[in-house]
Amino acid sequence: MKIAISGKGGVGKTLLASLLSKIFAESGSSVIAIDADPDSNLAATLGFPNSDKITPISEMSALIEERAGQKGGFFTLNPKVDDLPEKYSQEHNGIRLMIMGHPKKGGTGCYCPESALLQALITHLLLARDEVVILDMEAGIEHLGRATARTVDKLIIVVEPGRRSIEAAYKIDKLAKDINLQNIAIVGNKIRSQSEKEFINSSLPGFKFLGFISYDQAIVEADLANQPILDASPQVIAEARNIHQALVSNSKVISKIN
Amino acid sequence: MKIAISGKGGVGKTLLASLLSKIFAESGSSVIAIDADPDSNLAATLGFPNSDKITPISEMSALIEERAGQKGGFFTLNPKVDDLPEKYSQEHNGIRLMIMGHPKKGGTGCYCPESALLQALITHLLLARDEVVILDMEAGIEHLGRATARTVDKLIIVVEPGRRSIEAAYKIDKLAKDINLQNIAIVGNKIRSQSEKEFINSSLPGFKFLGFISYDQAIVEADLANQPILDASPQVIAEARNIHQALVSNSKVISKIN
Repeated sequence: MKIAISGKGGVGKTLLASLLSKIFAESGSSVIAIDADPDSNLAATLGFPNSDKITPISEMSALIEERAGQKGGFFTLNPKVDDLPEKYSQEHNGIRLMIMGHPKKGGTGCYCPESALLQALITHLLLARDEVVILDMEAGIEHLGRATARTVDKLIIVVEPGRRSIEAAYKIDKLAKDINLQNIAIVGNKIRSQSEKEFINSSLPGFKFLGFISYDQAIVEADLANQPILDASPQVIAEARNIHQALVSNSKVISKIN
Repeated sequence: MKIAISGKGGVGKTLLASLLSKIFAESGSSVIAIDADPDSNLAATLGFPNSDKITPISEMSALIEERAGQKGGFFTLNPKVDDLPEKYSQEHNGIRLMIMGHPKKGGTGCYCPESALLQALITHLLLARDEVVILDMEAGIEHLGRATARTVDKLIIVVEPGRRSIEAAYKIDKLAKDINLQNIAIVGNKIRSQSEKEFINSSLPGFKFLGFISYDQAIVEADLANQPILDASPQVIAEARNIHQALVSNSKVISKIN
């Protein structure tokens, strides 16, 4: 099972990725969680110790130079990456985590070697691994391509009650269809009322829905108090379990789940 | 006056950029607002009519090819851009708006021509224009460089009560200092209580603060009802006016403000 999660910044992609990673792991699946959103912190949300000490792949300059450096005037577009998941991942509570990082730095333009390596690594993880792979992405699908589109069992677009997140969902849906990625579903997050749920439903006609997650101030307070947020709200956990159930029962590859 | 706004996705960068653009314009300044965050929609928040019909610069393929296309195996790193603000901007309520868009598309890697053109255009707007320029950026400062760092009167990092937005602020601060950009200040947004304000203050010791903006459900409701959000909350407008006042009175270039 390969799950990619996208949506506007701040809608709760990382929360959902963390909850699903935890629930899949607790259900006995081997899970690889991939943090491909430099703007978030999947390690911290998953409760990894010393989460701020994990070096993202994008900052491993020697590795990038070795695997994707310029050679004879050309960048390697298909760097060797199949050994990287074992070498450059962390494990905690049965979840293997890889942090991609950001291929850009302050005051600079494009960085092909970093991007090429990250893209090749994500392609490998989606194409060649047997684990449940959960990919926490930015507000787009840059890390996916035509080759990986058919391996993604579900692209989940997270939205919140707000027009900008709905607009982002339409943009992401269009980008996904451009690469022939069809298995798309919505999760509505931070729901405070029935009318907010109805706003999301009526704003996205024709989309499939996997479920809704309530806004719970207990999660904000746990975060501010530096407590584990995944355990803070029984209601949110129950809602995430329903989403997990919908994923598992919807999946065409159910027999392949570890 | 040149103001750049950054911060984690979803913290309210676009709301602050819109409020400041409006307040500067109402105070008699000529304002250029730049939407450099593909994940947001400054045009809609500023109330531009047909905001979804404006073509971002990054999607003007012919222009990009003409100005930054590959020539003899080399990309132009300094494309001509000084005529673009007049040709490719929209005006509404005294605010001139340019939408940069996203230089990436689904399933692809790096796109130097688009990035080169956008970067050159932003550099031009920051270096060579007399207007108040307000730059709504992503969760980073990719659009800024050493050349533009000294022209930015204030890099505002927006945070909300949440650890991930504080971590993003530290990352952005580091990237800014890497390019010698020193004029950095924090705005705390979506404040629901005194303890949330104290959390932000205590999490960012040593940072300068420009002000705080309250969470107001009226803004969410105006957005869901497709009403103008900038007028929805008198309290938020008053708080934004205080931030504008702090910017104007702090600025070393006060005599240059239009």
